[in-house]
Amino acid sequence: MGEESSSEKLEEEVARLVELAKELEDSASSFVAKTSSEEQSLRQRALSIDSSIKKLRSSIHSLDHSHHALKQKCVKVEEELYRLRCSLNDGDLASFLPNKSHGTFLKKFLGPISVRATRKDVQLKVKEEYNSYRDRTALQFLLFPSTLLLLRSWIWNGCLPALPVQLYQAWLLFLYTSLALRENILRVNGSDIRSWWIYHHYCAMAMAVVSLTWEIKGQPDCDHKQRGVQLFLLWAVMQGVAMLLQNRYQRQRLYTRIALGKAKRMDVVWGETAGVEGQLWLLCPLLFILQGFEAYVGLLLLRTAFVGVVSEWQVVFCGILLVVMAAGNFTNTVQTLMSKSRFKAKVKRSKSKQELSLGSTAKNL
Amino acid sequence: MGEESSSEKLEEEVARLVELAKELEDSASSFVAKTSSEEQSLRQRALSIDSSIKKLRSSIHSLDHSHHALKQKCVKVEEELYRLRCSLNDGDLASFLPNKSHGTFLKKFLGPISVRATRKDVQLKVKEEYNSYRDRTALQFLLFPSTLLLLRSWIWNGCLPALPVQLYQAWLLFLYTSLALRENILRVNGSDIRSWWIYHHYCAMAMAVVSLTWEIKGQPDCDHKQRGVQLFLLWAVMQGVAMLLQNRYQRQRLYTRIALGKAKRMDVVWGETAGVEGQLWLLCPLLFILQGFEAYVGLLLLRTAFVGVVSEWQVVFCGILLVVMAAGNFTNTVQTLMSKSRFKAKVKRSKSKQELSLGSTAKNL
Repeated sequence: MGEESSSEKLEEEVARLVELAKELEDSASSFVAKTSSEEQSLRQRALSIDSSIKKLRSSIHSLDHSHHALKQKCVKVEEELYRLRCSLNDGDLASFLPNKSHGTFLKKFLGPISVRATRKDVQLKVKEEYNSYRDRTALQFLLFPSTLLLLRSWIWNGCLPALPVQLYQAWLLFLYTSLALRENILRVNGSDIRSWWIYHHYCAMAMAVVSLTWEIKGQPDCDHKQRGVQLFLLWAVMQGVAMLLQNRYQRQRLYTRIALGKAKRMDVVWGETAGVEGQLWLLCPLLFILQGFEAYVGLLLLRTAFVGVVSEWQVVFCGILLVVMAAGNFTNTVQTLMSKSRFKAKVKRSKSKQELSLGSTAKNL
Repeated sequence: MGEESSSEKLEEEVARLVELAKELEDSASSFVAKTSSEEQSLRQRALSIDSSIKKLRSSIHSLDHSHHALKQKCVKVEEELYRLRCSLNDGDLASFLPNKSHGTFLKKFLGPISVRATRKDVQLKVKEEYNSYRDRTALQFLLFPSTLLLLRSWIWNGCLPALPVQLYQAWLLFLYTSLALRENILRVNGSDIRSWWIYHHYCAMAMAVVSLTWEIKGQPDCDHKQRGVQLFLLWAVMQGVAMLLQNRYQRQRLYTRIALGKAKRMDVVWGETAGVEGQLWLLCPLLFILQGFEAYVGLLLLRTAFVGVVSEWQVVFCGILLVVMAAGNFTNTVQTLMSKSRFKAKVKRSKSKQELSLGSTAKNL
């Protein structure tokens, strides 16, 4: 009898649950329908503002710039528009602005899932995590190859064993893949990473795969045969130092720019060339030396291949890739520097003129 | 004079834009705040229903099942609860139910970005794309190694050149990485992929990396030295056939189960063992043969290593990995089959009893 009543109670309970679930389902459906229509309208309005900004910009450029007073005004208006665009990108409206497409790389690895965060705080968290990831990996990037090189001369009698080097290469492949994925995700979420720095990681991924297939020869004549690997490790150490410096000095500068409204909060500093004035003189030569060394290692590899000491295809491939990467890095560094100095000169010129006419422009910076 | 007025117009236009942007920003902020609080309440209610279902289930299990009529009722109630859970997972409420965490693998590769789609149609699109990705890759999985094996005997005189095999291995690495990423994403979105099939892909990724570091030896005595690679390619061909069969027959069955309300629309068929009755007799032996062959290749590799023909660490590693994968596949296949037959027996028993007492249960299926 007690069993009977408890089974009846069970059925009642289930019926109640089904009812409850139905209600909840209905309110979820109406919520989804309502929010998606509201989102649509917000997106429409954001799009119209975005295109107005673009139109205004192009009309400024088409104005006659020979008139001095007018030119000043134009610079001022352009700055204002730039700041407006930044503030739009930094607010809650960001996720409704037209966004960059996901790109082939993300689609190949992840399928058609969207990796765009709708809330700004989530986007910023993703960026913060990316920065701390770079900090951590920069240190590993420095320690891993230098340990290998040190052990080589202390313990291994000048001859690297295959396994640790291959572990390092596999780690590099994972690292570059995760960096490329994360940077693509940041781009979708509104960061302005230059395309080259992402392509650079694709090249690095290819090189890591190829280096894995590259047999590491042992004794006899080890020092001669492992010349390429040694050079590569040395280059990696220098790369690690440059990454640490960039992370440290440039982020400081980026925060300053964000505070001044000249950069978006989602921006990152990958491959940026300029530190705070002064640190620039430390970083710039280091970057150029690094790029020169990269090209040198590449050419050295190509020479070994064509002189005929080593005839593996990996040597040629890695050599060409290193030269291409060095050239690309150099071009992009110079471009960034030039656009920066152009911008600076422009601001300076307009500033000195404004100082003449208006007294002070502190509020504009 | 004209320039002056146009510059004034410009400034007016900018001021108007700034005003507009401010308004839009405000409405976006209020929209985000409102929706996130509503989402919160929906999530709360979904959570409470979810825990009620769990509580009911455990109270069913604690009931005294010796009473026949009661037992029947319990089976019925349990089925109802299962269907309720499925329908909740399939509706608009799905994204508000408590979800699986992202897991270390996704976090390592992608950082802390969420890959959960809020809308059901997007989730289903991701699943559909995953299915068609599997179809495409199954064909490549079959064609790539069989082409290599055919070319080996037709053109390459029984000796595989290194480059094509390494290209194949690199492709395998990419393929398994993307599959592992996509399956993790599907899990976050509510698919019920058994953990083993994802671990299986991690193992396959490790093996692809290791096989890349494995030097492919040439003449003389090529046939003997390349025995391992040949066996591996042969196994890959069989794997391709099994994937094609699984994709074709099992999906049909899954669609039937979804139509009956016995499976969620987000479920996929990775590694599922049962096809439609009848096709099961084709698929099951094939799967077991495949697993046996996998273990055989693994043991063969281990033997070569310990007999001392080849002393590279990669041989031992790949051998152990293949044996582990075969054992895991076998265990999981048997588990799935057993739970299926248990379920069937249970349903049959309760069915025959219901038929005795109620006449027909067709509406319950």
